Amino acid sequence: MSERYDIAIIGSGPAGLSAALNAKIRKKKFIIFGNKELTAKLSKAHEINNYLGFYKKSGKEIQEEFNNHLKEMDISITEEKINNIYAMGEYFGLMVNEKMYEATSVILATGVQHGKLFDGEERLLGKGVGYCATCDAPLYKNKVVTIISYNKHEEEEANFIATIASKVYYIPMYKEEVSVDSSIEIINDIPVEIIGEDKVSKLKLKNSEIDTDGIFILRDSISPGQLVPGLKIVDNHIEVDRLMKTNINGCFAAGDVIGKPYQYIKAAGEGNIASLSAASYVDSISKK
Amino acid sequence: MSERYDIAIIGSGPAGLSAALNAKIRKKKFIIFGNKELTAKLSKAHEINNYLGFYKKSGKEIQEEFNNHLKEMDISITEEKINNIYAMGEYFGLMVNEKMYEATSVILATGVQHGKLFDGEERLLGKGVGYCATCDAPLYKNKVVTIISYNKHEEEEANFIATIASKVYYIPMYKEEVSVDSSIEIINDIPVEIIGEDKVSKLKLKNSEIDTDGIFILRDSISPGQLVPGLKIVDNHIEVDRLMKTNINGCFAAGDVIGKPYQYIKAAGEGNIASLSAASYVDSISKK
Ligand SMILES: Cc1cc2nc3c(=O)[nH]c(=O)nc-3n(C[C@H](O)[C@H](O)[C@H](O)COP(=O)(O)OP(=O)(O)OC[C@H]3O[C@@H](n4cnc5c(N)ncnc54)[C@H](O)[C@@H]3O)c2cc1C
Ligand SMILES: Cc1cc2nc3c(=O)[nH]c(=O)nc-3n(C[C@H](O)[C@H](O)[C@H](O)COP(=O)(O)OP(=O)(O)OC[C@H]3O[C@@H](n4cnc5c(N)ncnc54)[C@H](O)[C@@H]3O)c2cc1C
Repeated sequence: MSERYDIAIIGSGPAGLSAALNAKIRKKKFIIFGNKELTAKLSKAHEINNYLGFYKKSGKEIQEEFNNHLKEMDISITEEKINNIYAMGEYFGLMVNEKMYEATSVILATGVQHGKLFDGEERLLGKGVGYCATCDAPLYKNKVVTIISYNKHEEEEANFIATIASKVYYIPMYKEEVSVDSSIEIINDIPVEIIGEDKVSKLKLKNSEIDTDGIFILRDSISPGQLVPGLKIVDNHIEVDRLMKTNINGCFAAGDVIGKPYQYIKAAGEGNIASLSAASYVDSISKK
Repeated sequence: MSERYDIAIIGSGPAGLSAALNAKIRKKKFIIFGNKELTAKLSKAHEINNYLGFYKKSGKEIQEEFNNHLKEMDISITEEKINNIYAMGEYFGLMVNEKMYEATSVILATGVQHGKLFDGEERLLGKGVGYCATCDAPLYKNKVVTIISYNKHEEEEANFIATIASKVYYIPMYKEEVSVDSSIEIINDIPVEIIGEDKVSKLKLKNSEIDTDGIFILRDSISPGQLVPGLKIVDNHIEVDRLMKTNINGCFAAGDVIGKPYQYIKAAGEGNIASLSAASYVDSISKK
């Protein structure tokens, strides 16, 4: 049996980090998933003036302050992307490809993803369109797979799928240099539409077209409704009450993912609340 | 006519300060009321670890960071205590004793006051018990007035009332040395109960009793329902929606005053939201 955490925090932006500080102070056994960069929304910010206590610092400088804070409190981020979270009653199962983590409570702090869906994406979701290549790999044995990737980290996923599929197209949506397996064909073009009747058949790009059986779109975040089946979503945001409880017992949420305005200190404040609520929830469960 | 502000922020704790930063960034004409110490809840805190970005700093050190931030952004705090706020339809009238400020919108960030009411206080409120000595001074011409004061700043108020009342008793609830007008009698004892049928007649203290016509209790904060008549209060906190709107159009609230948990970064996050909401409100009004 895998060990069970009291609290699993998904996301390493200000909401998730603030939740982690408070989980630590409350002496809960917790894990925080995200990445060492913390959040691209911080590292890419030019100058920040509305986070009380920091003036005219760049996102990178504040990122460093946050990293120092984590280091001093001996908090480290588990660099994994959670693909699915299942409410199992007494605990939650958090899936990272084939691996599963267990936690009594969950805090969703995954932020929002900008940019709209591709034409045909929603209609063909589960019919050839997917968001986790490794999860669905077995379905594509000896088939043609296209990966639209928003992050250099995903190159590994492409390499893995290339060992199974007959052909892999890789469309990088980022600026860094691409280095994938030589069997993979890199396409430098902009996806426009996903085509197919009941199943994906083609990807239309600005200057070309590809025949493909499957298309994986690997964005930095997964929509929350997709991450946690049964979660109540209102106007594209997770619905929470003032204590950051969602409609699922033991599941809390904080930050951009619960609604506007999209702001650092709002996210951090909500992460604080969510963490204290999760800690009380865990205490109430363990008393039973 | 007095000049009219777009936004008046009441309180200089993390909620009010965060609101002020955002009002400044949004280029609104605003005023923030409070005190140079910012908030006693900061200056008195020993060590703070759960404000993301600051580790093992004392309240005083964080207070200094906040002060630097304000200074750099050219924000200064107006050292006045607001006694009453009246919704006048198009604007709010904010009373400071005999003076009035005007603002199109208001953000209440007054924090919570700890400690319970004195026995008899609620029953005799308005019947000899009051919270603003200068406001009600004319009622006590040639009468006996007792002031229970939680802050050295209130000594001025005692001196003023001494020019009107026939006798003033002053009961300091703080540790600093008291220096009031020589006509005022200082009583170093602990109030226990306010006595009177339909009107205040006596104050019972731990070791003594005083005959008095009026008793002013000058705490650091005034309860929000008392500050803004008509404001919806639920469980002792101001009711707000996710955008920090209260039941009164143009009136927003943030921080401890809207509910638990009582935490710095929660307060700051809510101040940020309230400020953006107030700014949109002001924009919508000016477009009409
Ligand atoms: C360029 C730019 C400038 C900005 N400037 C300001 C500003 O000056 N002031 C201001 O207040 N706000 C600003 N913002 C907004 C601010 O960045 C966001 O409001 C804030 O980052 C939200 O924090 P969050 O913790 O909710 O989410 P995010 O910061 O988006 O963090 C979410 C994190 O979760 C990770 N994640 C998502 N899904 C998963 C998963 N399934 N498994 C594991 N990890 C996952 C993501 O990779 C990310 O690291 C700016 C945003 C941008 C893009
Ligand atoms: C000793 C101590 C230690 C704490 N430690 C922590 C901690 O480690 N971490 C944490 O997250 N939280 C901590 N807290 C809680 C934290 O202090 C509060 O949650 C926070 O200060 C709330 O901010 P606020 O802006 O809502 O209100 P406050 O900080 O209470 O500020 C309200 C301000 O408004 C002013 N005001 C009120 N009424 C009026 C009026 N009518 N006119 C003008 N001004 C007015 C007050 O004088 C005050 O300055 C601690 C509290 C205390 C007392």
